[in-house]
Order: sequence, then C-alpha cells, then structure tokens
Amino acid sequence: MAEKIPYKIYLNEDEMPKAWYNVRSAMKNKPAPLLNPGTHEVMSAEDLYPVFCEELVKQELDDTTEFFPIPEEILNFYKMYRPSPLVRAYCLEQKLGTPAKIYYKFEGNNTSGSHKLNSAIAQAYYAKKQGLKGVTTETGAGQWGTALSMACSYFDLDCKVFMVKVSYEQKPFRREVMRTYGASVTPSPSMTTEVGKRILEAHPGTTGSLGCAISEAVEVAVGTPGYRYVLGSVLNQVLLHQSVIGLETKAALDKYGIKPDIIIGCAGGGSNLGGLISPFMGEKLRGEADYDIVAVEPVSCPSFTRGKYAYDFCDTGMVCPLAKMYTLGSDYIPAPNHAGGLRYHGMSSTLSQLYDDGYMRAVSVPQTAVFAAAEQFARVEGILPAPESSHAIKVAIDEALRCKETGEEKTIVFGLTGTGYFDMVAYEKFHDGKMEDYVPTDEEIAKSLSKLPKM
Amino acid sequence: MAEKIPYKIYLNEDEMPKAWYNVRSAMKNKPAPLLNPGTHEVMSAEDLYPVFCEELVKQELDDTTEFFPIPEEILNFYKMYRPSPLVRAYCLEQKLGTPAKIYYKFEGNNTSGSHKLNSAIAQAYYAKKQGLKGVTTETGAGQWGTALSMACSYFDLDCKVFMVKVSYEQKPFRREVMRTYGASVTPSPSMTTEVGKRILEAHPGTTGSLGCAISEAVEVAVGTPGYRYVLGSVLNQVLLHQSVIGLETKAALDKYGIKPDIIIGCAGGGSNLGGLISPFMGEKLRGEADYDIVAVEPVSCPSFTRGKYAYDFCDTGMVCPLAKMYTLGSDYIPAPNHAGGLRYHGMSSTLSQLYDDGYMRAVSVPQTAVFAAAEQFARVEGILPAPESSHAIKVAIDEALRCKETGEEKTIVFGLTGTGYFDMVAYEKFHDGKMEDYVPTDEEIAKSLSKLPKM
Repeated sequence: MAEKIPYKIYLNEDEMPKAWYNVRSAMKNKPAPLLNPGTHEVMSAEDLYPVFCEELVKQELDDTTEFFPIPEEILNFYKMYRPSPLVRAYCLEQKLGTPAKIYYKFEGNNTSGSHKLNSAIAQAYYAKKQGLKGVTTETGAGQWGTALSMACSYFDLDCKVFMVKVSYEQKPFRREVMRTYGASVTPSPSMTTEVGKRILEAHPGTTGSLGCAISEAVEVAVGTPGYRYVLGSVLNQVLLHQSVIGLETKAALDKYGIKPDIIIGCAGGGSNLGGLISPFMGEKLRGEADYDIVAVEPVSCPSFTRGKYAYDFCDTGMVCPLAKMYTLGSDYIPAPNHAGGLRYHGMSSTLSQLYDDGYMRAVSVPQTAVFAAAEQFARVEGILPAPESSHAIKVAIDEALRCKETGEEKTIVFGLTGTGYFDMVAYEKFHDGKMEDYVPTDEEIAKSLSKLPKM
Repeated sequence: MAEKIPYKIYLNEDEMPKAWYNVRSAMKNKPAPLLNPGTHEVMSAEDLYPVFCEELVKQELDDTTEFFPIPEEILNFYKMYRPSPLVRAYCLEQKLGTPAKIYYKFEGNNTSGSHKLNSAIAQAYYAKKQGLKGVTTETGAGQWGTALSMACSYFDLDCKVFMVKVSYEQKPFRREVMRTYGASVTPSPSMTTEVGKRILEAHPGTTGSLGCAISEAVEVAVGTPGYRYVLGSVLNQVLLHQSVIGLETKAALDKYGIKPDIIIGCAGGGSNLGGLISPFMGEKLRGEADYDIVAVEPVSCPSFTRGKYAYDFCDTGMVCPLAKMYTLGSDYIPAPNHAGGLRYHGMSSTLSQLYDDGYMRAVSVPQTAVFAAAEQFARVEGILPAPESSHAIKVAIDEALRCKETGEEKTIVFGLTGTGYFDMVAYEKFHDGKMEDYVPTDEEIAKSLSKLPKM
C-alpha cells in the first residue's frame, strides 16, 4: 500500500458531474426505435406521451445530444447520497494474492440500497414538473420500488407500485420500506386491473412475473388522469440518468491517473451496466481508448449469451411498445429456484446494439458460484452485496485470479450496485446448502423464442 | 443554502483521528470501579483477565491517560467505512421551518448497519493480538452481534454469539448476516451452558433477555481455553473506542468553524452517546466550552430518568462484576410491546457519573412518537433510521421546533447510530396502528430496584 491512493476515492461537490452523458450520441449504429405493438410503426413522441412524462420521452428518443444538464433539484438530491465511493479492494486483492488492482463503485450507500435511486429521482422530478399527481410502476425484488417510493416522497407525488406477488409475500420488509415512504403496494397480478383479471383467469394461483406487473402498471397509468408510468431499467432514459455512475467513476479514476483495463457490470435490463460504462464506451466508440467491457448475467436468464437479437414484447400483457433487443422471449421466466435476480427476459436496446457491434462481451455465471463470491467478498470487504451485484464480483474475482496466473497487473473496475439486506432468505438457502443452479435447455429457450412477434 | 457548507462533511484520510479520546481523564469525579459480585472488593486487572482480553482490561481501568493511539491495523479497517459523514439536514430543517441548523453524524454506512463496528473491530484486534482462538458475546436486536461477526471474520477469529431467543426467532435475517460472516449463533437461554439450563428450568418457555445472554456468553468464555468475552456497550473501553465518532464530528465541525449548542444521542448502555460526546464533554469538563448535552431513552426503559444511581448486577445470572450506574434493577425487562430498542436495565458508569454531576441531562420519549419522527426523517432525509437512533431524531426535532417558536438559530448535532433495515416488523406495527406505548408504574420500578445488591 505504498501508493497514495486512498481506500475510497470520494469526489468533492465541485468535481461531481453536472450533466448526464448520452452514450447513443457516440454510436454509429443507433439503437433500433420502439415500435407500436399493433401496427409495427415507429413510435413518435406523441405516441408515447400518454404513457411517459414528456421530458422523459424526449430523453428516450434523443440519440444525438451528447450531454443533458442535470436539473438543480436533482443535483441537490444527489448531494444527499452522492458521490458514491469508488473503493480500492485492497483486502480482496490481498486475500486472492493477485497482482491485479481491483476497484468497485459502490452504489448501495443510500436507503433504497441500490443504484436505482439515480433514475428514480430524475423520473419523479420530471413527473412533478409536468404537474402530475403520481406515477405507477412495477417492482420485482423491490429495489426499484423502494427507490421510486423515496423519490416520490421527496417530491410529494403519489406512487403506486405493482409488486410481483411472490416477492410481495416473501419480502414483506421491502413492502414496509415502500410504505414507510408513503407508497401503495399491490401484489401483482391483481383484480384491480383488466389485464390482471385476465391473467388470473388464465392462470389461477400464479405468483406473478415482472412482465405481468409492467402490464398492470401501464394500464393504471394510462387510465388514471394525472398519472404516468415509470420504469427502472431497459429504457434509454434510464441509462442516461445512470451515466452518473460512470461519470463519477471516471472522474475519480482520472483524479489519480488510473486507467482501467477491464470494466465489469451485472446485467438484468442493463441500467447499472449501461450507466457504469457510458463514458468509457464513449471513448471506445470514438477510438480514444480501449477497454475490455464485460456484461455478467445469470446462466438461468442468459439474454445476451443465449438470446436472440430481435424485436420483442417488453411485457407479458403485450401492451407496451416493441423493442429490439437481445431477448429470451417475453414468455421466458427463470426457474423458481433462481434467487439471484437479473430475471428480465430482455435487455436494453442500447446495450444490445453495442454488444451486437462487438464493443462489449458477455459471460453467464451460475448462482451458487455467485453467492460463494458474495460471501468471500463480504468477509474481506465488509459490505453485504446484493445477489445481482455479486454477479459482477464473481467475474471480477475470476479475472483477478487469471492475472495471478499470468502475472498481469491489470486494473479491474466493477459496479457494486447494492446491498443484500433484503436477500437473506437467499443467503440462508446458500448457507444451508439448499441452493441449486439451473441451466435452461435449448428446447426451453427455443420454445419461448418461437413466440417472438412476426415482423 | 448560501453557505459554503456541503450537505455532507467528509474528512480526508489525514484529518481522521489517530487516537481514541478517554473522557475519564478529564473527570474530577471518576466513574466508580467494578466490584467483585461475591466479596464486593474492587476488581483488579488480574481479576478481569480470565474474562476480558488483557489490553482491553487496561483500557477499562485506566482513567488518567488522555489519548490511546489507534493501532494501525484498526486504522486500516476504519478506512474501509470511515470517516462517516456529518450531514447537514437541510431538507429536515426546511420541512420543519426552523431557524435551527441540524447536523447528524451517520454511523449506518457499513454492513453491520451501526456504530457498533467501531468497538467490535478494536476488541477483535486485541483478542487476535493476544493469540486467542475466539470470543463470545450476546446480542439482542443483533447490531452488536453483526458488527462483531464482521470484525472476527476480518481477523479470522471464531465468534460465538448468544442471541436473545425472541430476537433469534423474530429476526432470522440478522442471524443469517452473522452466519454470512462465519459466526455461530445460539438462541439464549440455551441448554449449552449451566446458567442457561438453570434459567430454563426456573422459567420454561422463556424467550430470553439480554441479561441471560450475557451470563451464558461469559460462562462459555471463562470455560473455554483460548476464548474471552466481549461486550458492545456499557464498558469504559467501549466508550473509548466509540470516541472516534465524537472526534470525527468535532473535526468536521471545526473544519467549517461550526460550534454546536445542543448535542443529542440515544442511550441504551451508552456506547453511542458516550462516544459522540466524549471530546465535547472533555471541553466542558475543562471549562473551555459549554454544550447542552442530552441523553434520550425510551419511556419504557428509563434508566437515567427514573432509575437509581447504585451498584447493580450487569447480568441476570449475576456472574459479572457489579457496576455503579443508573439502573432500573437487573430484573427489569421492558414490556413485550416495546420495539424501540435501548432495553438494557443499566447505563455506562462513566455517563452515570457525568449525569449525576450535572454535566448532561436526560429525557425519555414514547415509542410511537419515536417512529413518527423516524418516518418523517426518512421521507425528507432519505435514510431509514434504526428505532434506537430515532430516539435522538425525535428530540432533535423537538428542539428544532422550540427554536421555531423562539426564533433562536441554535446549532443541533445528533447521532444517527444506524439503519432500520432489520426493524421492518416494528415499522409495520407502527404503519398498521398496532404499536402501543408503555410506561412502567412506580411500583414496577420499585419492585425491580428492591433487588439491588446490598452493599
């Protein structure tokens, strides 16, 4: 530890990003546009206004503007929990005996416990600015719902959360956190929406899925005056807001003249990975620098590594626009034994295009290995990671051990998106040896892919 | 917000404390010594060595040395999560419409979720240095057990935790966090100790108490070669380690020329309050400054406000030394409906002496008001506070509202000791209107005080 680099690199307030970075501005091949699910025509801004806030629609469709200034109200909120620390994992390096230098950007240091708050506060702000009464959304594990509840409470907006029923029942504490922030939480599918009734009729006793909950939240938003729908991942606007992660990371690294070789992020819908890599990817696209950029996904939900790049439905009820993305098919639901999160069938259109163009690679990892890495990390670094984040930990450790073999002193940066306080049921399973891995068969994936919309 | 004071004041690594401050060195009336429970003779260092680590015994008994240098290994660990932020509660001030300036020192930004880690890592370090195999301890709500598990994992020490049975059953997630860090967790009272068997025989079906768990942990420590007992509150050594909270707070305030008028901390055994106020109390004792120092306790466990200053047992099994302290009697257990923590019958000897000498005051607050303050705080400041910490929030808000009436621009500093992620059952009760307050009757307190040891 002869270096002058502190354990945690914090930025001063004046070093913090004042604008979000739009990685699409640097892409030659732009992400494919959203299509109307009925007509297959390109969705215009006007088509999207009934669903999303106007300002957010503009951000969604704008693939040329390089920087979007962050409104002062959002900057003020960011100051309450940002900058997040960029931590040098000295203890982990020592434990592994690797010559690699490992850094992680820790986004769990806020009550929502994850990076989701970065976009939640932005979306709540624009909803308030538009004079709306409230917003609707879905949540699975609950990180997004928690973040949005906090953000809505801050701007005095009503917040209606549709929570996947199995999580609603298994994660009562997540639910209570949302209630603490004043949100109403409905288990999905519910009898409060038409699409919910339809789904319950077709599948009585279903425990729900993210796709169902999206359909319900959209229905309520469109049908309730003064409400709009908001989403915590997948969308371009979300990646834009999450670029604050990457911008801070880059500023902190630049401050000490550190150049990363490998940048690793977990990928469900792509919100964290897209945000973390944005400014680095911008350099790579402009040919100014080269980075090995790695998306990590679970073997039980392998959108990048085993999915197809195609237009698909974003939700089960098929009420949302079609998006072109790496997808396993909108019917695909990871096996019930999957506890590791990242269970969305598709992937951000922006990341899908970048992956398809060869600017990043993807690996998939089994969940028992992910929890083993999580526990190893917790014991030396003192942070209890969320299962989702631990996918990135697993691959960072693998890369560091590879450096140990080759003697390379690579600099590895990974995103630690959140904490695992509400995931102790999964940890318990792991401790008790009751956790299993699940690898979908080719037939299973082919079956759900066979239901892709005919274009 | 015209001032140049940031939302969060962080210290640089070179501004962080390098030594713990021993407030006893400034006290004219020293805290009364520990006594042998059988003979009532003053306990010497040699008497205490079978129970506690040697270095810690020295710290326990030393009331003259002003500063104890923090060993480098501990400084390195502190760097992983310290300095903790001193936050200006701009949003809370605005919501209250108060001219008061409110600051809080937030100790929840580490996986243990509370300030307990500050002493846990120190106690684990000295145990390791002495060549011990492991340590034993008790935990109630689980903050201390979690912190100690983390610390022991870091130094590769075995950690045996006796967890009050009712918490063990109601807080399975806390238990899993401890297991993640490799600790063994036994519900107390248990059949693994003589004192546990005795208690279970006398009270079959008991759900345990902190006092029982202490007795069991001490028995195992004394009876197992290579083991010692460690405790997360009450003791002088704990206040010494926790002085890092106050030293950082003072350094951060001094950095911006801020002088607090009121300093508020919640008080169960006194670890947080004692640590927070140490350097300020030092100034006050030397006549260099005056501060209004306030201890906040629950009305259902009012050691300071309704207890007696007397020698008492520290544990139910009466195996520990006697301590002179404000106490409700070692038989006293708060009503079962009490969810707000801070349930120890006694109080730190150091704080008890300072309180008795008039250097600080104490107030007691009912838990429904505490949870209402917690929720109000969460919604504007974005941190989900632990019930214990929320006692300080409640009184800080009360003081700020008093300033609103009088127009005084007082500067209020309070300790926000931890997060409430594992207390959602209590929050749920509060949300559902099922939380009740309990005020013990005079007869109840008189009854448990009647069992004080005859001196």
